[in-house]
Amino acid sequence: MKTDVLIIGGGPAGIVTALSAENTYKGLKITVVRREKQVLVPCGIPYIFGTLPSPESDLIPDKVLTSKGIEIIVDEVADVDTSSKRVTLKSEEAIEYDKLVFATGSLPKVPPFAREKFENLFSIKKNIDYLTRLKKEIENSEEIVIIGGGFIGVEMSDEIAKRGKKVTIVEAMDHLLLQAFDDEFCVMAEDELRKRGVTIRTSATVKGFLGSNNRIDYVELTSGEKLRADLVIVCVGSYPNVELAKKAGLVIGYSGGIWVDEYLRTSVPDIFAVGDCAEKKDFFTREVTPVMLASIATCEARIAGANLYRLKAVRETKGTLGVFSTAVGDLVLGVAGLTEARARKEGFDVVVGESKTVDRHPGAIPDAHEVRAKLIFSKYSGVIMGAQLAGGKGVGEMINIAGVAIQKGMTAVEMDTLQIGTHPLVTPPPTAYPLITAAANAILKIFKEE
Amino acid sequence: MKTDVLIIGGGPAGIVTALSAENTYKGLKITVVRREKQVLVPCGIPYIFGTLPSPESDLIPDKVLTSKGIEIIVDEVADVDTSSKRVTLKSEEAIEYDKLVFATGSLPKVPPFAREKFENLFSIKKNIDYLTRLKKEIENSEEIVIIGGGFIGVEMSDEIAKRGKKVTIVEAMDHLLLQAFDDEFCVMAEDELRKRGVTIRTSATVKGFLGSNNRIDYVELTSGEKLRADLVIVCVGSYPNVELAKKAGLVIGYSGGIWVDEYLRTSVPDIFAVGDCAEKKDFFTREVTPVMLASIATCEARIAGANLYRLKAVRETKGTLGVFSTAVGDLVLGVAGLTEARARKEGFDVVVGESKTVDRHPGAIPDAHEVRAKLIFSKYSGVIMGAQLAGGKGVGEMINIAGVAIQKGMTAVEMDTLQIGTHPLVTPPPTAYPLITAAANAILKIFKEE
Repeated sequence: MKTDVLIIGGGPAGIVTALSAENTYKGLKITVVRREKQVLVPCGIPYIFGTLPSPESDLIPDKVLTSKGIEIIVDEVADVDTSSKRVTLKSEEAIEYDKLVFATGSLPKVPPFAREKFENLFSIKKNIDYLTRLKKEIENSEEIVIIGGGFIGVEMSDEIAKRGKKVTIVEAMDHLLLQAFDDEFCVMAEDELRKRGVTIRTSATVKGFLGSNNRIDYVELTSGEKLRADLVIVCVGSYPNVELAKKAGLVIGYSGGIWVDEYLRTSVPDIFAVGDCAEKKDFFTREVTPVMLASIATCEARIAGANLYRLKAVRETKGTLGVFSTAVGDLVLGVAGLTEARARKEGFDVVVGESKTVDRHPGAIPDAHEVRAKLIFSKYSGVIMGAQLAGGKGVGEMINIAGVAIQKGMTAVEMDTLQIGTHPLVTPPPTAYPLITAAANAILKIFKEE
Repeated sequence: MKTDVLIIGGGPAGIVTALSAENTYKGLKITVVRREKQVLVPCGIPYIFGTLPSPESDLIPDKVLTSKGIEIIVDEVADVDTSSKRVTLKSEEAIEYDKLVFATGSLPKVPPFAREKFENLFSIKKNIDYLTRLKKEIENSEEIVIIGGGFIGVEMSDEIAKRGKKVTIVEAMDHLLLQAFDDEFCVMAEDELRKRGVTIRTSATVKGFLGSNNRIDYVELTSGEKLRADLVIVCVGSYPNVELAKKAGLVIGYSGGIWVDEYLRTSVPDIFAVGDCAEKKDFFTREVTPVMLASIATCEARIAGANLYRLKAVRETKGTLGVFSTAVGDLVLGVAGLTEARARKEGFDVVVGESKTVDRHPGAIPDAHEVRAKLIFSKYSGVIMGAQLAGGKGVGEMINIAGVAIQKGMTAVEMDTLQIGTHPLVTPPPTAYPLITAAANAILKIFKEE
């Protein structure tokens, strides 16, 4: 078989690369090879354990590809021969390609204490059968321990607690979500999670598991304390899935991801890599960054898909910004760019602006929610480098306003004089729009009164 | 009495000018003179007739000013002597000022057919006693005719219909909201309003009223048709309140607003004007524009307040963009910049990008709502000039993302490769984020396939 574009991996990165290529170049034969029969919405996974009825309600339908004439092959790539431009599938079928894209994603990290197999020990794999088993285990468990207090751990805790289970979340750092937010925002998330009945154990590391008959009974902390557990879910992050790329001779970056340039081209001509399997550089620090997000993967995919045959426009990744949002109960948290702590640690001179208001106006509107903003600006250039928000659902899009401002190098004065749209039922008031008042607060510190 | 800064007008423009001056310059004596005992949130006014319990729940508390040491005088300015820098109040008190700011707002337009007085004929005045009377009239009426299908007319219709009243909205143009949106978005609003039980009469003009004993019984259209009415509310827009400014000798622009430069300075030294009473120029067309919005007024106020004594930074109005949002039932509509119709009429070469998706992911998330986007780009520079959105509540902030993009001159390619944050419970999916897919759709037309 021959194809023009062959994409390995059927997640968001693979799907969007295919769509972007199809949208940019007409008449191409595009083929996606993936292992999974059905593709999960990755960010929706925590929600299949609470909000959504089942894993089946969290699928990306194949017709987003097939309706555009893109072929899907459910199989695994066994081998890539980059000189003859052929891949061989496990089924032994061979496919000749013109352009090849690695979108092989990531795999959950397995910490040393979790290498032994237990029937009631799970991680978060993007596999519908595995997650269906996990959902059943959750339903049959009373006491559940989640190890790892990042986004997935926090979202899993919140969702599982909704089902009336006794959930404990264990995190080695001083706060949950500390890799993404400054302390005070982590504390807001923790307070909300506690209100929802979740027990939080920060600054706590796991020594190992105690159990019998292939089942864990207790999680043992290095402090010696033992936590009762009917079920343990490990959410300590992911690492790039590059086994095949390595075997094919692609250069792997020192972060462990496939090395790519700004156009998402790998070290081998006609081969691209996108998403979790590709190495990323931070927008500001210029260091390699382990951020793995579907929104970043799809951004890279749009760039790669359009750049496959020609650089029709300068479409490049300008560095990974990292725009995240998450929800704990009614509280939505968002972050874009650098936190204050990270910015200071990296040696940036920054000033911080803060504000607090309500996300509807007047505050008597029924679904009004307090909203807090923290913006981080470069002290001498005034350019915005980071934003953190906490509030109601509007935070999900408000953090994208900050994200655009960061990507376009907006200054504090520009943000202070920004024109925004407001409406009583859907936004904060025009008199105290959180991003603007936080910018005004920062300006006081930038232009010290003489 | 003497004050450093005297602001005439206590609405959002006056309040934010005072706050901006206080935030920028320390130790100033700032005084706000206003007619109203209590200040209404202007954009909240339609909601006091449905969603909110009473006009009193739509107030801006005085403490936003008094807590910063800003004085409020409830009185009216009778006279301004710009050479001796004194104003005289109706109470005959005189105030000497160093800097004076006109924030005198706007007054509802009264069309020729509505000049006669009737007990059951109302407009929308920012006056709590007047609106309390109107609320009572609404409660006592069965059939209500609203004249004018702009934002306020539409929002009033929707809110009053919630109270189980029979509402008819009469609009002279072919569609409701046509000054703000392209046809297809107007139609979405109309469909939703009709579902809510409102009768819509577009392309219909009012000839006059028929009634007796000082009460209207029928609204007569120029077609001869008569509409039964227990109550008539006229919402045909506002005009700048510049009587005092005229008397003081300030130059009035040809739009009828107070002439100001980009720093919001009027023709007289030490006098500024902000908000609805100040003339505005459109961001793109450079023509004077009659847009009156609290969000624009407060933007101007932030600029003027900071520029009163020194131009500490280049804080200027770059032209009025107009970022609006409104809600009809569950449908939220947003617009920023030029519509396609307006852009073409003004002679801009444009291309349009469109998209349709869901504002949660997966679509099975309980409060998911369809969201549609239309973006207008300059054909040859690729710069974004306008955006229209229709969807759920997230549109309120999503339109601000487009607003920032317009203000920062973002191109279609930049938007296509934008990094955004997404989350299942609060945003559309990363694989099909509406602004990005609409940009990709436009790019197809900009870079025609060779």
